[in-house]
This record gives sequence, structure tokens and C-alpha cells, in this order.
Amino acid sequence: MDVSIAIDCMGGDHGPSVTVPAACAFLSRDPVAHVTLVGDPAAIEPLIERVAPAVRERMRVQPATQVVGMDEPPANALRGKKDSSMRVAINLVKSGEAQAAVSAGNTGALMAISRFVLKTLPGIDRPAIATVLPSLRGHSYVLDLGANVDCSAEHLLQFGIMGAMLVSAVEHKDRPSVGLLNIGEEEIKGNDVVKQAAELLRGSGLNFYGNVEGDDIYKGTTDVVVCDGFVGNVALKTSEGLAQMLATFLREEFKRNFMTKLMALVAMPALAHFKRRVDHRQYNGAVLLGLRGVVVKSHGSADAFAFEQAIARTAEAAGNRLIERIGERMAVREEVA
Amino acid sequence: MDVSIAIDCMGGDHGPSVTVPAACAFLSRDPVAHVTLVGDPAAIEPLIERVAPAVRERMRVQPATQVVGMDEPPANALRGKKDSSMRVAINLVKSGEAQAAVSAGNTGALMAISRFVLKTLPGIDRPAIATVLPSLRGHSYVLDLGANVDCSAEHLLQFGIMGAMLVSAVEHKDRPSVGLLNIGEEEIKGNDVVKQAAELLRGSGLNFYGNVEGDDIYKGTTDVVVCDGFVGNVALKTSEGLAQMLATFLREEFKRNFMTKLMALVAMPALAHFKRRVDHRQYNGAVLLGLRGVVVKSHGSADAFAFEQAIARTAEAAGNRLIERIGERMAVREEVA
Repeated sequence: MDVSIAIDCMGGDHGPSVTVPAACAFLSRDPVAHVTLVGDPAAIEPLIERVAPAVRERMRVQPATQVVGMDEPPANALRGKKDSSMRVAINLVKSGEAQAAVSAGNTGALMAISRFVLKTLPGIDRPAIATVLPSLRGHSYVLDLGANVDCSAEHLLQFGIMGAMLVSAVEHKDRPSVGLLNIGEEEIKGNDVVKQAAELLRGSGLNFYGNVEGDDIYKGTTDVVVCDGFVGNVALKTSEGLAQMLATFLREEFKRNFMTKLMALVAMPALAHFKRRVDHRQYNGAVLLGLRGVVVKSHGSADAFAFEQAIARTAEAAGNRLIERIGERMAVREEVA
Repeated sequence: MDVSIAIDCMGGDHGPSVTVPAACAFLSRDPVAHVTLVGDPAAIEPLIERVAPAVRERMRVQPATQVVGMDEPPANALRGKKDSSMRVAINLVKSGEAQAAVSAGNTGALMAISRFVLKTLPGIDRPAIATVLPSLRGHSYVLDLGANVDCSAEHLLQFGIMGAMLVSAVEHKDRPSVGLLNIGEEEIKGNDVVKQAAELLRGSGLNFYGNVEGDDIYKGTTDVVVCDGFVGNVALKTSEGLAQMLATFLREEFKRNFMTKLMALVAMPALAHFKRRVDHRQYNGAVLLGLRGVVVKSHGSADAFAFEQAIARTAEAAGNRLIERIGERMAVREEVA
């Protein structure tokens, strides 16, 4: 895709040793994209010395002298790290030198800096974080995932609009369906905010499906699942915990004794295929939505394969007019109102 | 265990065809327990005709002419179904003829009727629903699971107390650890209610661990995980959805072609052992906590094996002074306050 991506090479648990090889792999796969590697040249340059010229010519290194710590308070990073790799990468999006930025750094700092530098789109009160998850029917996009703890109905509506536009851009769907995460018991169907949000979504012109429950995320009942950041974060973390527990149990069963180890050996191809299919690294790259620029957050612990997926997702969003789509949709809303 | 359990035989998707065989299996396993089978004698009696005398003599049938529908509004069930199997079973707990009741019927109706007939314990504002889930270290008890959507910090504290007493009773742990479900990002650590609840839990005399995240449920970081009913319901349903999706994918991989089917055949013993280990039926039986009596809710779709587990859990809670434990703990609180 003919896009230019700014990569915060110093962010994440592993820094350049992961981000730079991932960038090289991405450029090898995408023959027209460009990347700007932001960070300490002394750490980055040795890693790209031997890269093939066809890839090397589409990279440039942008020096940045500081690094935002993984546990650094966002306010610190915002005020005190004006030459951090994260900040410089986002500045490149602001100046138009890059169409999008990706970072495996501190989520809170990334959100604070993105918001400060890029600003939110007209009509968007709060940016949200959206992730993609596997489902029985393909993919589900869930937002918000932790940026906004106390949400109003209007915020949830805006999340619905942004999520739908994200799916339009990256999955090429015309009218993605939007579900509102709720709970099932009749007497207690949701709190007031969720009830009001359903009303707003119903009148929004979006392809609103109605309420969905937690299991619908993985059933793929709707393309987008909207919830507040607290609930979304719990759903995501709970999923991670369950997947890890099941993987541990499955491994234990096959390691129980000599016979089960033999079974594992025989079943390996099917198990490996299963593992690839549910490999969470494929789903790496949560999109910060609602900003005047595309910013993607990779898992801090991402390896090169996972970080490459995050770069590819960044390119997909930037190359398919994500920001313009959200802007257009919000403009239609303004006119109607 | 020397307890007498009232069983709502008509509740659930399958009614007596599941609940009665489950009761027989439970009594065969527990040589001293008694059960009262509540419902339509014409439906129940043919199912217990051929039961061994040692089991049969520990059952009695209590007629009830009505059945609460699975989708019936709780208020309807409460006002209009005074001779329902659910209501009669709970009445038996109230009168002391049974120590506990179990039903696979409509959750909302079960909660409404239990609350109306049994009343809440002193100091408990709202009953909660607690479930047990598997974890890497054993079991986690999570509450609330949908009875209370908008919770105050005080409610979350009460859930913590009730959850800890449940674990004391059924897992025989002296000082179960209690975690408060929260989200991880530094800048946005929880909403105000959760922050206040943490303060209250810290001063409660419980073995309070502090904040936990969604993945801690399955890591088994704490014995009890406290959250509001909306979040708890989403966490549980999301888990169900993920588990079903993974099971589907795993089955598909082994059914892909002749070779993978052969692999499945070879790996069957290990896979079957894994399946048993994570079989959600084992975890059937959510406890309604905070009432002056033990009431357990089985999954509506439970089969006989699953319903038997719910009966066993009911017996365990009733036989180990669950209500007294909660009452004692609440009394200590009153004295301190």
C-alpha cells in the first residue's frame, strides 16, 4: 500500500531488536510502502545495514533522543519527553510526513501524546481504543478497550460510528453491523447509559443490530461490539486469561506421560494448525480512533511477527481513508442534528 | 452430607427428565443426604419408580401445580405463580423443611422469589450471584454475575464478604483472598466506585489482595473476584463464547481430512482428558448469596450430569454453614462500625 508509516522503534519491551526486523519484514511483504524508523540511530542502523536495497531504499531513520518508559506516567511523558521516539513519530503524522504511526510503548502515554499533538476529530469527545478479535465468522472489532472508564450514551454512540468506519476501512465492508454490549437477564437489562446508547444508535443511521452479550464477540454476531472502556478491558483480559489457561491445560495433558507425548507428536500438524489459527499475535495492533491521524498501539511484549502485524494494520487503516471516513460520517451527523 | 435439599424439578429447559435423574445420581453418591422433588407428581413419580430403595427412601415428592416459564417476567412469577415448583421449593427452605433449594429455572424469577420469601441477611443490601470457574491454581469464585447492574462501593464490599464466606464454606479455606476486578492502565485505574470499594475492602478485615485484572480470574490470583453484575456477566459470557469458539476450531482442525481424523483418533485419550478437565458442566451451580437460606441456580440448559453438580454444590454450601458464616461476618462488621 502506498503509505508512509512512522514507527516508534524504541517502544515496547524489546525495542529496536523487535521493531526494526518487523519493519523490514513488513516492507518485504508490501512492495510500495515506506517507513520512518524513529529512535536512536546507533541502535537502529546496525539492524538495517544488511537489508536488501529494494527494502532499504524505502526506509529512513529519524533520530529521537528520548524514550518513554513503559510505566512512566502519561503526564510526564507528555511534558518531559518532547524528543521521545513516540512523540517524534506522532509529530511526523501531524506534519504529514507520515500517514500513520505505530508504537509498542506505554498505552497511556501514547493516547495522551496523540491527543495532544493530533487533536480529536470534529464531533468526537473522546478517542477510543479498538481491537480486532477472531470470531466464528471472521473478525469482531471491540471498542473501547480502556481509554474511557465512565462513558455517556453519546460516547458509546461515537464509539459505534468510529468502529463501523474502522471496519469499512480495514475489512472493506459497506455497512458493518454494530452491536451494543449488554447483559441478558430480562429484569436487569443494562444500566441507564446502555439503554440510552441503544436509542441513539438506533437513530444513528448505522447498521445497528441491537444488544449483544459477551459470547457474541466470539460468535461474530456483529462486526463491531461497543462498550465502555472498563467493560471492554475486562472482556479482553478475561479472554487472554482463559486462552492461556486452556493452552496450559492442553499442553499438560499431552505431557502427562510417554503415551500422551507420542499422541502429541502424531497430532502435531493439526495442533499446530489450530495454534496458528488462534495465534493472538495475528490480532496485534489496537487502533486509537477519533484522532486526526492514524495511531496504532502494539502489545508491549510483541515479538517481530506480532509487531509486523501491527504495522500492516496501521498501513491498512491509513491507506483506506480511515480518518476521512470517520470525519465524513461525523459531518453527516452534524447536518442531521 | 446430612442435608435436605429442595429441588425445583420443573425448571430448566428439560424439566424432570434431567432434574430427577440428577437427584437420583446425587443421592447414590451421597449416602446420607435427602431431597424433596418439587413439581408435578405425574411427571416425577414414573422417573423414580425403579430407583434402588436405599436412594428412594431419601426422596419425597412435594406437589406443585404451576411452572415458572423460562422467559416469564420475574414480577409475574412472583405475583401469579404462588404454587410454582420454584416457589414451593423456596418455601420449603423458609419453613426449615429443607436447608437449601436448587433450580434450573428463570434466574430473574428465582432471585425475585428468593428475596421475597427468604429476605436478605442483616446488613446485606442486595443479594448477589456467585459462580465458580476453573483456574490455573484451582478455582476462582466470581461475583456478582448479573443481579446488580449499578453497584455502590458498599455493595462491592458486601460481595467481597459474601464471596469469602462462600469459599470458606465450600472450599474449606480459612482466609480466602479477595481481589477487586479493575483495569490495568495507570492513568485510568478504575472508576470512582471501584476506588472507593478498594478502600472499604482494605479496612474490612478480609484477606484483601487488591486490584486484579480479567486474566487473574483464570490465573487464580485470588480465591474471590469481586465486580458489579454488568462486568461479571460480560466476563462470564465472553469466556463462554471464547471457549465455544476454541472448541469449534479444534474440532474443525481434526476433521479437516483423513489424516487429521486419524490424528484425532490417536490423540483421543489426551483430548478427552482435557475436555473433562475444562468441562463447564463441572462448574454448574451459581449461588445466590445474601439471603436467609441457600439457593442455587443451575444453567437452564444443564443436562443430568451438570444438574447433579449443582445439587452437590447446594449440599456443600448448606452443609457447611454458609448462611451462618455470612451472618457472623456481618455481625462482626456491625460491632466494629
